[in-house]
Amino acid sequence: MGMVGAGALALGAVNAQASAVDAKDVKFDEEWDVIIIGSGFAGLAAGLKAAQKGNKVLILEKMGRIGGNSVINGGGMSVPMNPVQEKTGIKDSKELFMNDCLKAGLGINHPELLSTLADRGLDAFKFLVDNGVQFKMDHCAHFGGHSVARSMLTTNDSGSGYIQPMLEKFEALKDKGCELRRRAKFDDFVMDGERVAGVAIREEYKFDPNLYSDDLENTSGTKKTLKAKKGVVLAAGGFCRDKIFRKLQDPRIPDDVDSTNHPGATAGVLLKAFEIGAYPVQVDWIQFGPWASPDEKGFGTAPILTQQGTFKYGIAVDVRTGKRFMNELADRKTRADAEFKILREDPKAYPITFADTKMAFKDLSEEVISKGMASGKLVGECASLDEIASKYGVPADALKQSVKKYNEGVKAKKDEFGKQESALSEINEAGPFYVIRLSPKPHHTMGGLKINTKAEVLSSKTNKPIPGLWAAGEITGGTHGASRLGTVAITDCIVFGMIAGEQIA
Amino acid sequence: MGMVGAGALALGAVNAQASAVDAKDVKFDEEWDVIIIGSGFAGLAAGLKAAQKGNKVLILEKMGRIGGNSVINGGGMSVPMNPVQEKTGIKDSKELFMNDCLKAGLGINHPELLSTLADRGLDAFKFLVDNGVQFKMDHCAHFGGHSVARSMLTTNDSGSGYIQPMLEKFEALKDKGCELRRRAKFDDFVMDGERVAGVAIREEYKFDPNLYSDDLENTSGTKKTLKAKKGVVLAAGGFCRDKIFRKLQDPRIPDDVDSTNHPGATAGVLLKAFEIGAYPVQVDWIQFGPWASPDEKGFGTAPILTQQGTFKYGIAVDVRTGKRFMNELADRKTRADAEFKILREDPKAYPITFADTKMAFKDLSEEVISKGMASGKLVGECASLDEIASKYGVPADALKQSVKKYNEGVKAKKDEFGKQESALSEINEAGPFYVIRLSPKPHHTMGGLKINTKAEVLSSKTNKPIPGLWAAGEITGGTHGASRLGTVAITDCIVFGMIAGEQIA
Repeated sequence: MGMVGAGALALGAVNAQASAVDAKDVKFDEEWDVIIIGSGFAGLAAGLKAAQKGNKVLILEKMGRIGGNSVINGGGMSVPMNPVQEKTGIKDSKELFMNDCLKAGLGINHPELLSTLADRGLDAFKFLVDNGVQFKMDHCAHFGGHSVARSMLTTNDSGSGYIQPMLEKFEALKDKGCELRRRAKFDDFVMDGERVAGVAIREEYKFDPNLYSDDLENTSGTKKTLKAKKGVVLAAGGFCRDKIFRKLQDPRIPDDVDSTNHPGATAGVLLKAFEIGAYPVQVDWIQFGPWASPDEKGFGTAPILTQQGTFKYGIAVDVRTGKRFMNELADRKTRADAEFKILREDPKAYPITFADTKMAFKDLSEEVISKGMASGKLVGECASLDEIASKYGVPADALKQSVKKYNEGVKAKKDEFGKQESALSEINEAGPFYVIRLSPKPHHTMGGLKINTKAEVLSSKTNKPIPGLWAAGEITGGTHGASRLGTVAITDCIVFGMIAGEQIA
Repeated sequence: MGMVGAGALALGAVNAQASAVDAKDVKFDEEWDVIIIGSGFAGLAAGLKAAQKGNKVLILEKMGRIGGNSVINGGGMSVPMNPVQEKTGIKDSKELFMNDCLKAGLGINHPELLSTLADRGLDAFKFLVDNGVQFKMDHCAHFGGHSVARSMLTTNDSGSGYIQPMLEKFEALKDKGCELRRRAKFDDFVMDGERVAGVAIREEYKFDPNLYSDDLENTSGTKKTLKAKKGVVLAAGGFCRDKIFRKLQDPRIPDDVDSTNHPGATAGVLLKAFEIGAYPVQVDWIQFGPWASPDEKGFGTAPILTQQGTFKYGIAVDVRTGKRFMNELADRKTRADAEFKILREDPKAYPITFADTKMAFKDLSEEVISKGMASGKLVGECASLDEIASKYGVPADALKQSVKKYNEGVKAKKDEFGKQESALSEINEAGPFYVIRLSPKPHHTMGGLKINTKAEVLSSKTNKPIPGLWAAGEITGGTHGASRLGTVAITDCIVFGMIAGEQIA
């Protein structure tokens, strides 16, 4: 009777407010080999790998649409020593890649995880190609903070270029007993002693972006417990949209700040993993995207229009002075800090970035450019520097002087802010120009669960893996240290997702 | 039978590797009103407050000696707007104090906790005086990063000046049923649903500094479960000596690095609190003491000889160049970073600090000075700048030039590194001098558990207090942000320890 009572109690409170459920108290509703929480890059990579090995795999996605932040991501993936680098004569190495990451990460990156990215990056790239992802094979992109161009781009310049083909491949395994279930919310672990034996979930979950904390307040859905015979993979992403937990780590983040993340990017799964003894690692490092714009909601198109466009072929200036204030291709932390410095002095003085129209978007697909232009608000078109000055309230003479000085630096191959020589090209002073306003948005949470190089989640109770538990992607911590370099996230997600799928027996 | 089995199982594994124990499965060995984990500043303050309200209080200390890091601390306590400031004409304010802390903390401090320190600092000071702590009442000390002198010092220049009298007061309450138990190790919480109902401990515990992880490997002691009718206070300190957990937060910390902390400063209690749902806050910020010396073990005497001595009345120089390289009274992070920069270029090039012997230690007690001199290795005595140059391998001309330049800055009331005007006094170039070598040591872990202004530990399951659980001192996070100002730790420990003791009904 006692045990039945305890079981009923546990099942009656399967949500954020309960504790992990004891397997002895549970009659499982379903049995799977592998259960994966999250359907982004890491979740799909783990799911595909595990399924292709013959496992019965269930991927759970709490939202109505799949892909989380991945599907709205810009689609660049760092692949050190990739075939396009070889073809185009770009010299890269493991050391160069690791040093770039360590520099941006302020030296606190976990070296064995970075090393794994370098060692398995090419495998991950091949895995993606095998699963139908289409990459631009004529050039690599050179993202901020990287010493060389090493970022592969999908042909559609979007993370959906990964998610769509991987999803199709995964759904084609339906007849082998695999399934991706939407609106299925992870509530807690089911534990068999210290081993993860399954998960307690709610189906028909209706995520509510209007709640202050969806994880704590949302009572929708129908409860179920699912057995995971071989293991559970956490691929639930970061917590940039978790108003409570992000503010605990950085109290300066206002509740109403815009973010590049989808509304479901909350800390619920991460916090539940801490409860079963997973180590928290470097959880307070929150990255702000320095290439976001206040003139569109969420991630938007500005990141790619600036990163692959105006930051490379143009400059950014402080509208109050007309002067440049950063290396437009520095690492994210450096650039976001530089923009924040201006915005803290004057919260409405959004810096601008611009380049002449011939050059600005020449590397981008028509699809992306027209998406960026669609609203008419994101990209300003100005016939001359004088028009930029009058439209954005910039001192005209200082602005002209800044362009002149930049062009002199290009000629001398020496930029005053240390912009990489390979990315220097003159701006046509005559115009016309494309102009974008800048405002940093919470973009990536560097910290999370400690995993080893096998993607196993380590336990603070033993300093050894928690049996039956793996994790990959933004929910893990340590790989990126204090600040993640652009396009290393996809590498991180695919490499460790793939490893998790390989390791689950 | 099922419940008995579960109970026996839980009791059979009462150590780091188990999960929290269910109160229903336990027959308690003892009953207390309040149980406190840790016997440092925070634990004794909480214990005294709770005991003086008539509660039956048990303080548990895992080590053989009481006081943890507190008893080896330098003894300075920030008290904004204190009576000595008033007497000596020093203007201070809540805003000034909070801004100093926020500046050092890189702005990520939790404002409501800082605000509580400012509001209750004077109460805490009075509470200490009432409990027999003896302060120097002629002057306040001016510590690095503070805008004004606001740090009260004990007459013996040591944290033992707090611990001894508080301990005596507490032990005098023995006949009221209070007790401080040494070698009593917290293993886990006993939970009654979501309420902390007690603790599982081991008595006759023998902490073993030779184990890689005492928390995970030590099997000594006899198990007991103790009921805490009103609540448990966590005052177990930080984790500067936890080789595993500190390296997860900063992989650059070598296992064999010396620390200012006592050997028992591990993360065991903190990690157990995460398991019952306490939020981790800013856990990866680890502070290094920039005033420590490689010429003594542990905390030693260098911190007070430099902070109250050579940093104030002298300068610090890079031995390779003979030049100053920092404001000797900047905040800790700034100074430790400056020293690390030198030591990463040349790991043996320990910077030196010196002042002329007449001034160097004039503010310090005989007891402290003779302790510092005792080994003959910590404090070098040099007759002249030439002798410093030859003894420490410093370019002599550059060294003389640095002293000259410093003295000119003193006269002009403008220091080249921005040392506070009130702390500027000329160095007698003729000597003789006291000299100390510098090497940063892990000193304080800023992050920890999230508490509210009532010292209640917040739960990630509810974003509300965990019933029956309080915390104070270094085990909590958020007060100090990215870097703690010197002497604010004691304020933090006493204020929140006192509040925890007040709040436990």
